[in-house]
Amino acid sequence: MTINRQILLVSRPKGEATLDNFHLAAPELPELGEGQVLVRNFYLSLDPYMRGRMNDTKSYAPPQPLDTVMIGATVGEVIESRHPEWQPGDAVSAMFGWQEYGISDGSNLQRLRDSRVPMSVYLGAAGMPGVTAWYGLNRIICPKPGETVAVSAASGAVGSVVGQLAKRAGCRVVGIAGGEQKCDYVVQTLGFDACVDYKAGNVYEALRAAAPDGIDGYFENVGGEVLDAVMRNLNAHSRIALCGMISGYNGDPIPMKHPALLLTNRVRLEGFIVTEHMDVWPQALKELTDAVAAGELRYRETITQGIENAPAAFLGLLKGENFGKQIVRLV
Amino acid sequence: MTINRQILLVSRPKGEATLDNFHLAAPELPELGEGQVLVRNFYLSLDPYMRGRMNDTKSYAPPQPLDTVMIGATVGEVIESRHPEWQPGDAVSAMFGWQEYGISDGSNLQRLRDSRVPMSVYLGAAGMPGVTAWYGLNRIICPKPGETVAVSAASGAVGSVVGQLAKRAGCRVVGIAGGEQKCDYVVQTLGFDACVDYKAGNVYEALRAAAPDGIDGYFENVGGEVLDAVMRNLNAHSRIALCGMISGYNGDPIPMKHPALLLTNRVRLEGFIVTEHMDVWPQALKELTDAVAAGELRYRETITQGIENAPAAFLGLLKGENFGKQIVRLV
Repeated sequence: MTINRQILLVSRPKGEATLDNFHLAAPELPELGEGQVLVRNFYLSLDPYMRGRMNDTKSYAPPQPLDTVMIGATVGEVIESRHPEWQPGDAVSAMFGWQEYGISDGSNLQRLRDSRVPMSVYLGAAGMPGVTAWYGLNRIICPKPGETVAVSAASGAVGSVVGQLAKRAGCRVVGIAGGEQKCDYVVQTLGFDACVDYKAGNVYEALRAAAPDGIDGYFENVGGEVLDAVMRNLNAHSRIALCGMISGYNGDPIPMKHPALLLTNRVRLEGFIVTEHMDVWPQALKELTDAVAAGELRYRETITQGIENAPAAFLGLLKGENFGKQIVRLV
Repeated sequence: MTINRQILLVSRPKGEATLDNFHLAAPELPELGEGQVLVRNFYLSLDPYMRGRMNDTKSYAPPQPLDTVMIGATVGEVIESRHPEWQPGDAVSAMFGWQEYGISDGSNLQRLRDSRVPMSVYLGAAGMPGVTAWYGLNRIICPKPGETVAVSAASGAVGSVVGQLAKRAGCRVVGIAGGEQKCDYVVQTLGFDACVDYKAGNVYEALRAAAPDGIDGYFENVGGEVLDAVMRNLNAHSRIALCGMISGYNGDPIPMKHPALLLTNRVRLEGFIVTEHMDVWPQALKELTDAVAAGELRYRETITQGIENAPAAFLGLLKGENFGKQIVRLV
């Protein structure tokens, strides 16, 4: 008898999400049926989009139903198979959610083929967050050499890839992150040209100093005051890839202070979610995996141990308490 | 000796523009030099963009210098020429500004070739406002048959063309205008499917009733609360052509209340000014001129008599007091 510990969503947040919204359940695993595969999840990805699923409001995806396992990407290993194409020991990624095991008919499993890349990185730089960065940068911002690209949440799973790809494209790259430690990492390890600490004071002035020629492309993960400050530094014909607005996920909507700047600067702004652009995934994943394997694309992880600690880690992520990609180790 | 009455900008608005910002001057016309052309302006166009030029702030165009003739498009007739290519009687459009005469070396004159179209219409549906509508609709909104397109300032020079072109493209078209009279005109004369009176109450609810399937494309001329109400009715993958935000031209910036909707609906929003897209003008002008000549593209004009009344007419335009294209007749 195997117990499969899992985290259920049991109530919806009123304003800020809390630990009470989650419940740790421990059901038994059922017997594996004919054609089924049992996967032991090694790592669970925690991502800001999950906050949106906790609400019962219209968004780009239906809300997470109550009393079900929280949605989420996982990587792990097949440990039992009654399916001809899968064998114990096969490394796979899947969307098994916040739980220790997953059972599949094989249709939603992706094989992890490149052993040069650590398994957890398929949840970050070589996974959905990496492809998100790739899409927003290459399909919306479309940076030209010599332009200035800015990105918020610059030390995070998505932002760190955006900036490094923009550097490879020949741009001046300015990160925005919370705190000196993250900013130091963004410049010294990731190789950005500058990083603005949004907790340190006047973001508008700091950005003006860090991007003296103005900002041509902006990859947005946070929204709110950071977005306002960036908008006042935009150049004519700049582009904004709108990927996330985490600063508003936990409360009332945060207005955009100067929308007229979108007009006076003839800005193109595009909101996107990467799962609607599956056509780019093969190319993007190949480039990202190769770059990680070659040591040319750096990443950092915050690893929390144990499924029971996933809710607290997730609430920390919403407050920027993680540093790099937030992962939960399940083994 | 000929007097050329003209309106100068003599001070910059503090908040709302006022008559004091303008001055009526009456200099003598100089002698015509070799290679020069003298044009009698028959009509002057008044357009919202002029309000931006009155400020001394960064925008898409440099500010109008003080003590110079206000910028503006004109149509008129050559009355004297020392240029081999221009003869008295030639009908021309130019950017002579708010004055009764213009002198040119010919380089900035466009010949009005199609006598099926009344001269003043080259300042409206068959001129810059028409091309503005054409560009925003066809190059940004890119409407598909069956989609719903909304446009604000729907009875105005630009909005009226947007809606009529969207109808020709097979869309459901919803206008937004101020007052019952304008709304009746938009539906009954211009042929829109519905029109919401933004002065009559809850714009969000009225739009929801007028666009029961949601809004796929929005052509924005006004900004502010109208934009907020439209955004709450947007469909996934909708497009916003950001052409003007007249509601904020006379005062403090008006925030956008729910910018996160741009993300959750994966909206593409693009600010533009039509003079940066000269490549589309020939095709757009041909289509618009043909449609006007065929009686298939309707328009309405508010004609104010006399250059001395241009400032008051312009201030009225900023408040929506005009009905259709605002023109000043100079003869």
